Amino acid sequence: MGGSESQVVAGVDVGGTNIGVGLVNADHDVTAEAEVSTPTDGPQAVAAAVASLIASLDQKPGAIGLGVPGPVSDGVLLTAPNLAGFTEPVRLGDFVAERTGVPVVLGNDASLGAVGEWVAGAGRGSRFLLGVWMGTGIGGGLVLDGRPYDGAFGGAGEFGHMIVQRGGALCGCGRRGCVEAYAGRRAMEREAEVAIAAGVTTDLPQIMRDAGKDRLTSKVWKAAYEAHDPLATTILDQAVDALGVAIGSAVNLLDLDRIVVGGGLPEKFGQDLADRIAEAAEPWILAPSSHREVVVADLGDHSGIVGAAHVARSAPVRSP
Amino acid sequence: MGGSESQVVAGVDVGGTNIGVGLVNADHDVTAEAEVSTPTDGPQAVAAAVASLIASLDQKPGAIGLGVPGPVSDGVLLTAPNLAGFTEPVRLGDFVAERTGVPVVLGNDASLGAVGEWVAGAGRGSRFLLGVWMGTGIGGGLVLDGRPYDGAFGGAGEFGHMIVQRGGALCGCGRRGCVEAYAGRRAMEREAEVAIAAGVTTDLPQIMRDAGKDRLTSKVWKAAYEAHDPLATTILDQAVDALGVAIGSAVNLLDLDRIVVGGGLPEKFGQDLADRIAEAAEPWILAPSSHREVVVADLGDHSGIVGAAHVARSAPVRSP
Repeated sequence: MGGSESQVVAGVDVGGTNIGVGLVNADHDVTAEAEVSTPTDGPQAVAAAVASLIASLDQKPGAIGLGVPGPVSDGVLLTAPNLAGFTEPVRLGDFVAERTGVPVVLGNDASLGAVGEWVAGAGRGSRFLLGVWMGTGIGGGLVLDGRPYDGAFGGAGEFGHMIVQRGGALCGCGRRGCVEAYAGRRAMEREAEVAIAAGVTTDLPQIMRDAGKDRLTSKVWKAAYEAHDPLATTILDQAVDALGVAIGSAVNLLDLDRIVVGGGLPEKFGQDLADRIAEAAEPWILAPSSHREVVVADLGDHSGIVGAAHVARSAPVRSP
Repeated sequence: MGGSESQVVAGVDVGGTNIGVGLVNADHDVTAEAEVSTPTDGPQAVAAAVASLIASLDQKPGAIGLGVPGPVSDGVLLTAPNLAGFTEPVRLGDFVAERTGVPVVLGNDASLGAVGEWVAGAGRGSRFLLGVWMGTGIGGGLVLDGRPYDGAFGGAGEFGHMIVQRGGALCGCGRRGCVEAYAGRRAMEREAEVAIAAGVTTDLPQIMRDAGKDRLTSKVWKAAYEAHDPLATTILDQAVDALGVAIGSAVNLLDLDRIVVGGGLPEKFGQDLADRIAEAAEPWILAPSSHREVVVADLGDHSGIVGAAHVARSAPVRSP
């Protein structure tokens, strides 16, 4: 354990749209937070924005955990397709450490989100946890045998690109049949557009306008589902079915004890969605267990910040 | 580490047909071995057979590692569909310990096989390893982050029941689209029978007879493949393709650095088969790495014995 166990630590969640920073105490409570839009001019600009956010908080943290949207190996962010200007592998943590004078631990955002839920959210008490993050795409993070798991080259947790149907729906990654091609919001939206263009009867566009939205947000899906809109119901059912298959495969391989589903749709739908996913997964699981649970994430936007702070707090002491 | 580090230790592989026992030294060499047919009258008979085999060896081992064909949790073999008379969960290790006076560590055979390859075979140097065992069905074992991995309830490693195609081929487990339904020998044989019954032209039956076999052994598949038999080639290609998809899913989730393929077909076909599987997996992998390898198992029938001995040697000291 590090020297910052009792100190306040900062957790940072660098996303494609926003950067969120929180101060997190030893009880995993977020005691202060701040947010800015993510700069689009590359790593140094992002590091500067993170440093300013941290300086804006009322306390200097003893360590910083920095979550980034890409694979991280040995302190290097390897790729970050959602961050503008990140064209090559970069030691983003070092940039932030240099600007703040505080030691930084770099990690993948989806993995850190799973860690956050594990230490302080819906994953507490689990030792074999998969976090499934339903957003534009489907992300994932793992805690295996009681330890955060990043894999051999920092790329573990790509649950969204487990194959549920070889030759199936086209995924944003260019492959066919990934679970993300059925359960990612971008894929679901595309499916709805194609159906609407083909003349399928649906109130989705009207429900979207009534909700004051210009795209199919989780709120719109929830409203359409509650209104028993047949297209929305079909697409949501397909998403749930695909998640069930992929979770079945993951459980057969890893014998998990907890699956935490987070992101827009689970937040809106609540435990009902988790229950439906559990039901869809059940037939695929070779060794069902009543001790295995599918639950909705607890920490909302804070999963990643709390997880990042935890790994920073737990890291061996090192100089910035 | 246990007190048996420098002692000779026994590894046992309890299979549906035979029980194999080996004495294994600290260099993981098998220095003596023995085998009998597996008794069909339940756990005590199997324990007695194991004890006799061990007594027949020239040295009393300091510990016994006992590999069994079923999930193991907290020293209990939960189910073993391939062992006659095993109708309920059983502490088979305790039975063997009572009969031998030697401490026993119980583990799953496929997991221990992966451990054997990891410590002494084709998995050496890996920290994130999947062992794929191609037999009648498809088994699997994991070493993750440098530690043998058994999962929350002892059931991890069921790689054979990862789904590659929802709604696809019928698997022996009753589900559809498991990788085993394409790449398990039983499934491949059934596929050939169906095709032959439907009048597909093939020399498989003749090749089988020429080989002096009454079923489609790995040797027969190899001979038919080398003779460019179209049906054999198609079925083998399907097996390789399915393994590629499932390995792709496993790598995307776990970011493995080594996949070791063992069992009849890989032994007969050698590294060529591993290379073809690697090629089939490549398009499915989100983050390819030149440091990731697919290799054929090294230890033949000894993987499980060496792995079982290793975990017994590494286990904390305890009384029988």
